[in-house]
Amino acid sequence: MPPKALPYRAEQLAWLSGQAHRRFTASKVGDLIAECEQAGFQPESEEAANVCEWRRQYDRATKVPPHLVEKLERTCAHAREAWREARQQSQFKLFKPHLDKILSLTRQMGDCWGYAQSPYDALLDGYEPGATARTLGQTFSELRSALATILPPAMERSAAVPGDSLKGNYPVAAQQAFNRKVAEAMGFDFAGGRIDTTIHPFCTRIGANDCRLTTRYDETDFTQSLYSVMHEAGHGLYEQGLAPEHFGTPLGTAVSLGIHESQSRLWENHVGRSAAFWEHWHPVACGYFPDLKRHSPAQITAAVNRVSPSFIRVEADQVTYDLHIVLRFEIEVRLVEGRLGTKEVPAFWNEHFASLLGLKVTKDSDGCLQDIHWSLGAIGYFPTYTLGNLNAAQLMQCAARENPAMETELRRGEYGLLRSWLREKIHRQGSRRLPAALMQWATGEMPASRHQIDYLRRKFVNQPPG
Amino acid sequence: MPPKALPYRAEQLAWLSGQAHRRFTASKVGDLIAECEQAGFQPESEEAANVCEWRRQYDRATKVPPHLVEKLERTCAHAREAWREARQQSQFKLFKPHLDKILSLTRQMGDCWGYAQSPYDALLDGYEPGATARTLGQTFSELRSALATILPPAMERSAAVPGDSLKGNYPVAAQQAFNRKVAEAMGFDFAGGRIDTTIHPFCTRIGANDCRLTTRYDETDFTQSLYSVMHEAGHGLYEQGLAPEHFGTPLGTAVSLGIHESQSRLWENHVGRSAAFWEHWHPVACGYFPDLKRHSPAQITAAVNRVSPSFIRVEADQVTYDLHIVLRFEIEVRLVEGRLGTKEVPAFWNEHFASLLGLKVTKDSDGCLQDIHWSLGAIGYFPTYTLGNLNAAQLMQCAARENPAMETELRRGEYGLLRSWLREKIHRQGSRRLPAALMQWATGEMPASRHQIDYLRRKFVNQPPG
Repeated sequence: MPPKALPYRAEQLAWLSGQAHRRFTASKVGDLIAECEQAGFQPESEEAANVCEWRRQYDRATKVPPHLVEKLERTCAHAREAWREARQQSQFKLFKPHLDKILSLTRQMGDCWGYAQSPYDALLDGYEPGATARTLGQTFSELRSALATILPPAMERSAAVPGDSLKGNYPVAAQQAFNRKVAEAMGFDFAGGRIDTTIHPFCTRIGANDCRLTTRYDETDFTQSLYSVMHEAGHGLYEQGLAPEHFGTPLGTAVSLGIHESQSRLWENHVGRSAAFWEHWHPVACGYFPDLKRHSPAQITAAVNRVSPSFIRVEADQVTYDLHIVLRFEIEVRLVEGRLGTKEVPAFWNEHFASLLGLKVTKDSDGCLQDIHWSLGAIGYFPTYTLGNLNAAQLMQCAARENPAMETELRRGEYGLLRSWLREKIHRQGSRRLPAALMQWATGEMPASRHQIDYLRRKFVNQPPG
Repeated sequence: MPPKALPYRAEQLAWLSGQAHRRFTASKVGDLIAECEQAGFQPESEEAANVCEWRRQYDRATKVPPHLVEKLERTCAHAREAWREARQQSQFKLFKPHLDKILSLTRQMGDCWGYAQSPYDALLDGYEPGATARTLGQTFSELRSALATILPPAMERSAAVPGDSLKGNYPVAAQQAFNRKVAEAMGFDFAGGRIDTTIHPFCTRIGANDCRLTTRYDETDFTQSLYSVMHEAGHGLYEQGLAPEHFGTPLGTAVSLGIHESQSRLWENHVGRSAAFWEHWHPVACGYFPDLKRHSPAQITAAVNRVSPSFIRVEADQVTYDLHIVLRFEIEVRLVEGRLGTKEVPAFWNEHFASLLGLKVTKDSDGCLQDIHWSLGAIGYFPTYTLGNLNAAQLMQCAARENPAMETELRRGEYGLLRSWLREKIHRQGSRRLPAALMQWATGEMPASRHQIDYLRRKFVNQPPG
C-alpha cells in the first residue's frame, strides 16, 4: 500500500469492522436466536448445534461495544505499518507505543468478555474456544520438558546432513507443475480452488467453492514452495471438505485455528516430510527437477527433516518449532496479566530464547519483531500453532490405528483413506463440537501432548535416519 | 476464478449491487438532498454544485427497482464467463443467449430511466451524462468521413516502417524502472500510488491517496508496457489531481468516462507518441535498453506511430482506433433501438468492418467477440473511448495555445506546464460541470471532432514522417 494511503485505509477498516459488529450484535439477531432456542429442536439435531454455537458467538460479541472494535481495528491498521518499519530497522522502540495501545485495547476487550482465572483466557477463547492459560501452561510445560530431551539427539543426528544439500536449479514452472500434482493427489479440488503467488503463503475462502492457496518460489530450493503448498492445501482440504449444505452456518464453518492448523501440519509434516512420501514421489519429482536425481529418497527425507535451532519461527524444524511458540505464550500471558511490561519484551525474549534454543538473539528483527501477529491485535493466537501440531499427531495416530491399510497407501502416494477419515472425523463436523470435544469424538481421547511427543521421539530419535 | 465458484460469486455480486442501490435510493437520502436544496446555497457555490449532481444521480437511480439492478448484475456474472468461453472457442452462439438477456435487461433499465429520442440515450447517460445517439451519430459521421481521407496516405507512409522494427530484448526489470521514471516525470505520485502487474492494464482508486495502476510486460517489446503505463498514469493524474477536500462528493469525483479517457489518451498519444517525447527520452531509454541504441529518436517515433488496419481494437493505431468505435456504436444503437437482432451481429460486424477497415474477419474472436464490455452489461460505454480522443485533441490544442512555452518544455521532458493546466482546467473541477460544459469552460469551445481530425491530419499526413 502506498504510504499516504494509510490514514484512510485505517478509517475504512474501522468502519467495516464496526458495521460487521453492529450487524451481528443487533437485538434482532438476539431475538432470532432466542426464537430458535424456544423452537424445541432435538438436543442432538443439526439445528440445535447451530443455534448453540450462534448463541455462544452472539453472547461473546454483544459484550464488546462497537467503538472498542473500531478503535482496535484503527489502531492495528497503523500498528501494522509501524511494525513493518520497526522490523526493517530492527528497532523495537518504533513498535512499542503501538504494542502498548493494542495491549491496552485487547485487555479492555478481555474485561468485556470476562474470564474465570486469567484475562488471557478471554483472548484465547476468540481463537481456540475452551482453551485456558492454565491448561495450555501445563501442556506446554510437558512439551517443553520432552523437547529438551529430544532436541540434543535430533541435532546430533542432523549434524551429518549439510543445510544446503538440496540446493539446485528448480525453475518456477516446474515447481508449479509438481506442487499441483501433489495437491491433486492430496485431493485438493482445482475446480473449486487455485494456487497463486504471494510473498506470504496463505489459504483463504472467497466464497462457496472458491478456496485460494498461495505460495512463493525460490528457484534454488523447491522445498519452500512444496511444503507451503502441502500446508495450505491441508487447510484447503478442510475448507473444501466442510458440508456444502451447511454453508454459512456454524455446521459448515471450521471450528478453530488449532483444528485448522492440525490439518495443514498433518499434510505438511506427517505426510510430506515422511520417508513414505519420498519413496513414492522421488521418481515423479525427478521428472520435474533433474537436479534431484543425485539424491536418494532417504537423503531427501533426511534433508527436509534437518533439526537445527534457528531464529525465525516460520523457518523452524519440527522439533524446535513448538519452543518458539512456548516463548511467545510465556510472553503473552505475562503481558496480558500485567506481569511483564512491553519495554521488557526484547530482554525477556532474548534471555528465554537462549535458554530454550541455545541461540543468542543479536537483533530484534530476528527476535521479538519477527512476527506480524501482535500488530494485527492477535494476542492469544500463537498457541493455536502448537495445538495444531498436537492435534495433528493425535489424529494421525488414530487414523493409522483405525485404517490398517493406510500405511501401504501412503507409501504408494495414495491419500484416499487418510482424506476420507479426516473428512468424516473433522471436515464434515464443522463447528458441531468445540475443539476439545471434537478431538475426543474423533479419536476417543481428550487432546494431549503425548502423541506429538511420541511422534517426535520416534521420528527424530529412535528411528534410523532417512 | 475456479469454475465451481461462479454461482455463488454471481449471488454475492447481485446482493452487493442491490445493497448499494437500496442504500443510495433510500427515501432518507432523498430527504437529505431536498433539505440541502432548500438551504439556499448560492447558485455558483460548491455546495450547490454538489447538491445539483447528487439530485441528478439520485433521480436517475430511484427510477430503477433494486431487483432489476440485482438481476442485471447476476446475469452479467454468468455472461462474463460465457463470453470468455465463447471467445476462446470463437463461437458467437455460446455468447448469444447471454447477450439477449443483457440487452433485454438494459433496455428495461433504459425504459425506467426514460429518454426523449432514443432508448440508447438513456444508457449513454450512465457513462457520459448529456451525450445522445443523435449528436454522437453526427460527430462519428464527420469523424468517419475524415478518417477515410486520412487513412490511405497514413498507411502509405507507414508502409516503409516494418511492423517489428523495435523488437529486441527488454528485461522486465528495466521496463519497470524506465516506466517508473516516465510516470514520475509526468507527475504521478508514488507516495499515493503504485504500478503492479496484471493481464489487462487498468487504473483504479482504492481510497483516498491510493491510486493503483497496472500493466503487463512483453520482454521483446517495451512499447506495450510503456504506453499502457503512460495511459493509466494519465487516468491516475486525474484521480490524484481531484480536490482532496472534496473527497467522496461530486466535486471530488471524476465527471465521466469521456473526460477520464481524454486524460489517458492525451498522455499516451499526444505526449508519449510525439517526436518531442523521443527526442528527450531516447538517451534515457538507451540506458535501460541497450537494444534501442540502434534506432534514432525519429525511427522510434515512426515505429510507435505505424498506421495499419488490424482486427483488435486495443492494438489499433491512432488513425484506425476510432473506426473500431464507430462500428461498435452503430451496432449498439441498432441493438438497443431494436433495428438489429443479436443473431445478426457477427454478419453486421464483419460486413461493416470490411467497409471501414478493409479487412475480412474470419473468426468471431477477431471480431464481435473481442471485447468484454457487453458481457459486463456495459452498452453505451464504447463511444466514450472516442470522446476521450476528441477531448484530448481539443484540450491539447488549447493547452498549447494558452502556454506558449509548453512545446519547449515537452521537448525537454518537462511536464509541469501541461500538468498544471490540466489540473486546473479538468482535475480540480471534479463533477462541478457535466462533460460538455466542462469542455466549454476549459477550452472556450463546445466539444467537437475537428481538433482530433486536424491533429491526425497534421501528424499522419502533412508532417514529415518521424
